[in-house]
Amino acid sequence: MRRFVADKVKNLINRTRTTCSSHTNVLQRITSSQFLSTLHPSDSMGSDYSSTPVTLNNVNPKVLKCEYAVRGEIVNIAQKLQQDLKENPGSHPFDEILYCNIGNPQSLAQQPITFFREVLALCDHPLILDKSETQGLFSADSIERAFQILDQIPGRATGAYSHSQGIKGLRDTIASGIEARDGFPADPNDIFLTDGASPAVHMMMQLLIGSENDGILCPIPQYPLYSASIALHGGTLVPYYLDEETGWGLEVSELLNQLKTAKSKGVNVRALVVINPGNPTGQVLAEANQREIVEFCKKEGLVLLADEVYQENVYVPEKQFHSFKKVARSMGFGEKDISLVSFQSVSKGFYGECGKRGGYMEVTGFSPEIREQIYKVASVNLCSNISGQILASLVMSPPKVGDESYESFAAEKEGILSSLARRAKTLEDAFNSLEGITCNKAEGAMYLFPCINLPGKAIKAAEEAKTAPDAFYAKRLLNATGIVVVPGSGFGQRPGTWHFRCTILPQEEKIPAIVSHLTEFHKQFMDEFRG
Amino acid sequence: MRRFVADKVKNLINRTRTTCSSHTNVLQRITSSQFLSTLHPSDSMGSDYSSTPVTLNNVNPKVLKCEYAVRGEIVNIAQKLQQDLKENPGSHPFDEILYCNIGNPQSLAQQPITFFREVLALCDHPLILDKSETQGLFSADSIERAFQILDQIPGRATGAYSHSQGIKGLRDTIASGIEARDGFPADPNDIFLTDGASPAVHMMMQLLIGSENDGILCPIPQYPLYSASIALHGGTLVPYYLDEETGWGLEVSELLNQLKTAKSKGVNVRALVVINPGNPTGQVLAEANQREIVEFCKKEGLVLLADEVYQENVYVPEKQFHSFKKVARSMGFGEKDISLVSFQSVSKGFYGECGKRGGYMEVTGFSPEIREQIYKVASVNLCSNISGQILASLVMSPPKVGDESYESFAAEKEGILSSLARRAKTLEDAFNSLEGITCNKAEGAMYLFPCINLPGKAIKAAEEAKTAPDAFYAKRLLNATGIVVVPGSGFGQRPGTWHFRCTILPQEEKIPAIVSHLTEFHKQFMDEFRG
Repeated sequence: MRRFVADKVKNLINRTRTTCSSHTNVLQRITSSQFLSTLHPSDSMGSDYSSTPVTLNNVNPKVLKCEYAVRGEIVNIAQKLQQDLKENPGSHPFDEILYCNIGNPQSLAQQPITFFREVLALCDHPLILDKSETQGLFSADSIERAFQILDQIPGRATGAYSHSQGIKGLRDTIASGIEARDGFPADPNDIFLTDGASPAVHMMMQLLIGSENDGILCPIPQYPLYSASIALHGGTLVPYYLDEETGWGLEVSELLNQLKTAKSKGVNVRALVVINPGNPTGQVLAEANQREIVEFCKKEGLVLLADEVYQENVYVPEKQFHSFKKVARSMGFGEKDISLVSFQSVSKGFYGECGKRGGYMEVTGFSPEIREQIYKVASVNLCSNISGQILASLVMSPPKVGDESYESFAAEKEGILSSLARRAKTLEDAFNSLEGITCNKAEGAMYLFPCINLPGKAIKAAEEAKTAPDAFYAKRLLNATGIVVVPGSGFGQRPGTWHFRCTILPQEEKIPAIVSHLTEFHKQFMDEFRG
Repeated sequence: MRRFVADKVKNLINRTRTTCSSHTNVLQRITSSQFLSTLHPSDSMGSDYSSTPVTLNNVNPKVLKCEYAVRGEIVNIAQKLQQDLKENPGSHPFDEILYCNIGNPQSLAQQPITFFREVLALCDHPLILDKSETQGLFSADSIERAFQILDQIPGRATGAYSHSQGIKGLRDTIASGIEARDGFPADPNDIFLTDGASPAVHMMMQLLIGSENDGILCPIPQYPLYSASIALHGGTLVPYYLDEETGWGLEVSELLNQLKTAKSKGVNVRALVVINPGNPTGQVLAEANQREIVEFCKKEGLVLLADEVYQENVYVPEKQFHSFKKVARSMGFGEKDISLVSFQSVSKGFYGECGKRGGYMEVTGFSPEIREQIYKVASVNLCSNISGQILASLVMSPPKVGDESYESFAAEKEGILSSLARRAKTLEDAFNSLEGITCNKAEGAMYLFPCINLPGKAIKAAEEAKTAPDAFYAKRLLNATGIVVVPGSGFGQRPGTWHFRCTILPQEEKIPAIVSHLTEFHKQFMDEFRG
């Protein structure tokens, strides 16, 4: 029965794929059976639900087509193992699950930045602002900042819907932060505050994709939010490959080739997605490369969708983050010359406040009538959460030299970033020391994306297990060590190559054990499958 | 130029409408020119943006079609007037703007519930939980509750992404709250926590709508989130009219007629939306009526989408809220007999925490394979904001008799609800005393939806001003009094009838002035246009 259901989903997905070949050729998709793997056998007896109206035959096929591996099968297995460990300690060869699947620092014991949390707490409960005990509990500048923020909110009402783009005063702060970062003007009316970056990406995809003929150029490998959002909106993902040999380089010649190929298939390419620093690939683009990319978008009439959520995560002294807006403006391209959207999130950076769901997009180079359409779509959901809005203003305007919190803030920031840099280097070296594994540097972001040269026997075993070879490896790794990584097939990779994404986020004191478990597992795996 | 742009949008919208006649016949749409009304004349010179790639001709036509009047033209005018009043006090015949357009209680000075905010602040900054000063600032039970909640969160990490359905422990609390409310079991695995109810509605529409042939039965008048979401997902709104004569009664015969009509046009009707208590109409359904509705959905194979966000807003002793799940279960329909989704939000109730963007949907009666699809869509956005999740658990599990906060909590709750009931009654009576206006009772929710019998001369004047007659009235009202209401055409209404939606939320001490300004304006309006 279960097998029957899985086959049925697969057929339905294949049916929906036929119109969208450039997309489906690229992502070596994890079959949809992963979504069934968590069902209890009894639940799979679809016949019990035979009188309910929604079935795999009449559900929106775009939903069936959408995939999101970061929370896919491997994570479901991990959650079950975790439950198992709780109920039967000692039942597995490890005593904890190490989630290296997702950029979720605080789930791995990273502590929040104190100043940010002080301000959020005070804004949540402003009644205590004037109480004497508050002075003993909170820093003076967090109290002052909370007063400032409340003054920016109409009626000081942190429980009211705000303007659909977010509270104007907070957008002013964010625009000033962008100006300070870039050295070019930023307009608060260009800022749309959102519940994390994901809804902002969906909003732009919704605007740009009218049918499957509308294509979006995406890097391969890519963060699967993009493929998922394009699938949900019924568009076509036009892939461009990052060059692993040159540290995941982004070649404009590759962009051009893929654009031409897509056009020849009748795809109307609307936008280029660039993730910088890269996810899952961790590279930081050179400014000269960014200039070429801007030129390309300008020349080809593409919207540049710049995922810049890792802008504060750069770990190598020779590289620096430059926003695409700064690059475009420094080339002399103004508001009316290029359509550019920059996505930013409070989930990443050194603060890693994923659960707060704060973020924004800065929307430049769209005509007023299109801007009004974006505003309208934003207004349908009324506004993003106010705590997330406040936090987005804080990350773009942290304590400054002379503020009471500055020193502790700077120490917390430096402590997190330098530790991340060390962890990245240790894991990179560990991967590179393993047979058949090569791993580029994590110049930025939160991930390593090692390439595994899997032995033919392992690939065959994976085929027999009806799973992608990289997923086969990741499952074996999980079952042997409790370490959760995401198979490269969830991000897309050059056909015939195999990778996985591993975050650099586990606590530093755990890294040595992770390295030794990884090493031991990998040796055993290779011994088992080596030619 | 501006006129030209407006006409262009209108033509484009009309072009996209041709396939969707049952939808467009119903909603007397505010023309899209409303979305252009905030532009400065110079901004409308589209030619400056002639080299940017996104235009009204190539933007997603579904986006053009979508409308959301609650934040439409009237609100834009109001915001300008407010700015004007700030810069030039005395420049208008009123000294403040009274926003009666949106259910946003805290924007009109309603204070948050103290206990809820105490718990949120403590969860935001758990470092203070053990400090002695905290005892002096926070109630003992808020401290205890914060500890409980933190214990439910893996790693006590309020800054981490949670499970995509929300934190399991909080879902347990919510399920218990539902059980206590209904007297029937609730399963925490059926709960999907969301950033307010709106994303939950979108998620269900996304699941159900694959093409324009998929139809959703919606009440007319309706809350325009539904028409907007259906438009964005490319489906067909199948209207059913509420009967104004019987207090906005919901007749199953009307449902059946509209279902038949839709089927005869080839529309595959997937679901029925019921808003109870009603928005914008304020009626509370009788249990017998709800049973008929459940029967109808069961018999016709429709998903019942129950918008129950106003469940705690009932103002008349003769009516009581019953959840559709309770009604279905009390009829003997179990999990596998009927597909039912209940939407709940922290934005409404007596707490009105709109800015926190918390809410959930309880999803019952879907097969495991469909449930997995819903989970997958939820996982693409990772999770809803944790503060909103915590708040959703608090509203479903408030302080109990014996808790330190209970008395003050109960007093705050009773104070808000009884005041809302008085305001509803005063405004209802005021509307009914005006020439040509009839207004049903607000049994629940936060709105009155009076019917205005507009004189022929006013309708003609509106036509000349190229605006809907109810929008004409609402604009005149705003310009004369500063009172912001939403024209009925934004919600849909029987052709030839005219209404507006007015919230009952302004502070109680302001109600007498509002009534007198309304009365004076209405008399002058009728004197000007009376036949």
